[in-house]
Amino acid sequence: MARSAEIICVGTELLLGDILNSNSRFLAQELAALGIPHYYQTVVGDNPERLKQVIATACDRANLLIFTGGLGPTPDDLTTETIADYFETPLIERPEIVEDIRQKFAGLGRTPTANNFKQALLPEGAAILPNATGTAPGLIWSPKPELLLLTFPGVPREMRTMWRATAVPYLKQQGWSQDQFVSRTLHFIGIGESRLAEQVTHLFELQNPTVAPYAGEGQVKLRITARSQSEAEAQALIAPVEKELRAIAGNQCFGVDDDTLASVVGALLQQRSETLAVAESCTGGGLGRILTEIPGSSTYFWGGIISYDNSVKARVLGVDAQVLDDLGAVSAPVAEQMALGVRKQLQTTWGLSITGIAGPGGGTETKPVGLVYVGLAGPDGFVTHQECRFGDRRGREVVRLLSANSALDLLRRHLLNPA
Amino acid sequence: MARSAEIICVGTELLLGDILNSNSRFLAQELAALGIPHYYQTVVGDNPERLKQVIATACDRANLLIFTGGLGPTPDDLTTETIADYFETPLIERPEIVEDIRQKFAGLGRTPTANNFKQALLPEGAAILPNATGTAPGLIWSPKPELLLLTFPGVPREMRTMWRATAVPYLKQQGWSQDQFVSRTLHFIGIGESRLAEQVTHLFELQNPTVAPYAGEGQVKLRITARSQSEAEAQALIAPVEKELRAIAGNQCFGVDDDTLASVVGALLQQRSETLAVAESCTGGGLGRILTEIPGSSTYFWGGIISYDNSVKARVLGVDAQVLDDLGAVSAPVAEQMALGVRKQLQTTWGLSITGIAGPGGGTETKPVGLVYVGLAGPDGFVTHQECRFGDRRGREVVRLLSANSALDLLRRHLLNPA
Repeated sequence: MARSAEIICVGTELLLGDILNSNSRFLAQELAALGIPHYYQTVVGDNPERLKQVIATACDRANLLIFTGGLGPTPDDLTTETIADYFETPLIERPEIVEDIRQKFAGLGRTPTANNFKQALLPEGAAILPNATGTAPGLIWSPKPELLLLTFPGVPREMRTMWRATAVPYLKQQGWSQDQFVSRTLHFIGIGESRLAEQVTHLFELQNPTVAPYAGEGQVKLRITARSQSEAEAQALIAPVEKELRAIAGNQCFGVDDDTLASVVGALLQQRSETLAVAESCTGGGLGRILTEIPGSSTYFWGGIISYDNSVKARVLGVDAQVLDDLGAVSAPVAEQMALGVRKQLQTTWGLSITGIAGPGGGTETKPVGLVYVGLAGPDGFVTHQECRFGDRRGREVVRLLSANSALDLLRRHLLNPA
Repeated sequence: MARSAEIICVGTELLLGDILNSNSRFLAQELAALGIPHYYQTVVGDNPERLKQVIATACDRANLLIFTGGLGPTPDDLTTETIADYFETPLIERPEIVEDIRQKFAGLGRTPTANNFKQALLPEGAAILPNATGTAPGLIWSPKPELLLLTFPGVPREMRTMWRATAVPYLKQQGWSQDQFVSRTLHFIGIGESRLAEQVTHLFELQNPTVAPYAGEGQVKLRITARSQSEAEAQALIAPVEKELRAIAGNQCFGVDDDTLASVVGALLQQRSETLAVAESCTGGGLGRILTEIPGSSTYFWGGIISYDNSVKARVLGVDAQVLDDLGAVSAPVAEQMALGVRKQLQTTWGLSITGIAGPGGGTETKPVGLVYVGLAGPDGFVTHQECRFGDRRGREVVRLLSANSALDLLRRHLLNPA
């Protein structure tokens, strides 16, 4: 059997939904980075019979079994003894763990109970996987040829420390991590997932690097992943595929990896020593919030006016009351006047505005829920707008998010390619 | 076999650790609330052979299989066809889904591609599990006696809506949920989790209803859960415990279930026919955004001024430039002047302000990261402020969230109990 791992998380609290399974995500990322394939993750409760069934299934399809949870001192914590039982191996008390537990309790001014010493029992032949911060050590054990088990406590901080300090060096030394996996994620806007997929279908067939789509709400991403023996070689595999994707998508590809629309727009403004103000109606401050998620955004983002009520549009932003009356707040002229008004009030290079109907109420036949106008005003009297129709099915918060993204994208495209 | 469920999450992105598996947690909580036992959760990639293996294993140990992921339009999305293949059942195109996809695309002004119509194929005999917000419907299918399959898209919002709208009523009607589990969650602010836990330890011992703490970032919640044969009986079990908890916590308990600080403040303002404006510095619009998450908030929330740059604080809000120079933007007088200024500019009953250091940079010895002032101005020259110290360990976004919550709570407490 080719080498592959399976992650097995033990804990009734996971079955009750009391906690998010952040351990399996962490381990998944780490395995991907080490180039160790893993095809299955399993969650099972604190139940010996079911855990044995899970071990049996995992042994049939993987040869590195990584357990988290169930190493604590309570009667519920059964992982170690269940593993020993499954492989019909006696548990042996380890004096070095007993001593470690005594010292850690002494350091806290407490006395360990009999339960705590349960943690000193490991199957015969297993090595200790030390836990520097907690009292529950894990194990490194090969109960039979071509099978390796690692156990970790469920506490994420302890698990991560143990993984990095001991498990990663051990796996590398044992030859588990051969290739390097390097990924690069491209972000797109202005194109749907299925349309982009159709344009790049031929790239989905590639073996190394691979190209795979990822969709979130209002976001489209493609990830290029290369497998190689060095990072440089992996980057060299990625580069031509990225170039081809960018050639296909043009300006619709707005960034890579941790880039966001706000960070990309921010970097463009910073390069040009320009400043931005926002005028928001239906987003209620959401565009400003996204812009200020970025530390240091104060160098180019000066602020804005949340004109949720029409009186604020008229009085503070100077939108023409007659236009508000005649065309309504959700209209192209109002979006443009909001952008002009906030630019003037805050004395910035650019003014960016949003006015729309986020729903669920407030829609009419001519102005349905999801109708949004974004406006942009700039130097020399420049002003423009864009109409967006997000529909009434995706819900208020999604319409608000898509509105903010559209406004940022209007500015981004104008900065890259002035009309 | 006694009835039990298994959650099967399909998606290579889960195996790569790209996303947290929030779907399995949601479904786990929901199954617990319905009283449907589940003992296993499995994650598998977008791979038909491995998915079939997972289905085979799950059929041996559960009789309600709940799938998430792999229903989208891309070639990677293989869940439906793999299930059909495993149970040797042909896929049939459903005209109603074809029509639904056409209509949803038309609503967005877009044309579906051939890929999109793959989502209209369901195994013969399967019922449609409608997806009101997205284009990928799920299925409800009993391919053989004593086995029920439900499929959901991986997008959490769509999955949750479909679960609540269709799956829960269906499972109840089919007798999957015997006892009723009724929960009521109380929300607290201004008290830490461990302090609250100390005050209510005796309630944690209860068996029916149970009381359990839930902590999020800056939020403290207690959940009361009653098990009973009728909802009315469960409510009757919950009521005295809720009363006791409220007596202990007083005003620190601000709401129940779906209440948020913003919704509670909004309801108070609406009752009083009063209006609110915000002046935001470090939150950059986040307070306005939280207030406008609530549909209908335009009746009491008029808008605000995002004064990220000091020039906006001085010029638009009228904060004294000398005070800004002498005391700095993060100071009690500036918070109060911001609140007074925005109230005056927007002509509202109340003005609420936030100025602080969200970090990671910008802290000094006397004004460390996490120092935030919130201010409140009201009728008859009323003005007050509150100093908050959130520390430098929780990160920028948490400080911003806690700042918005503190501002809302300042107003809430003043409305409930004017000084």
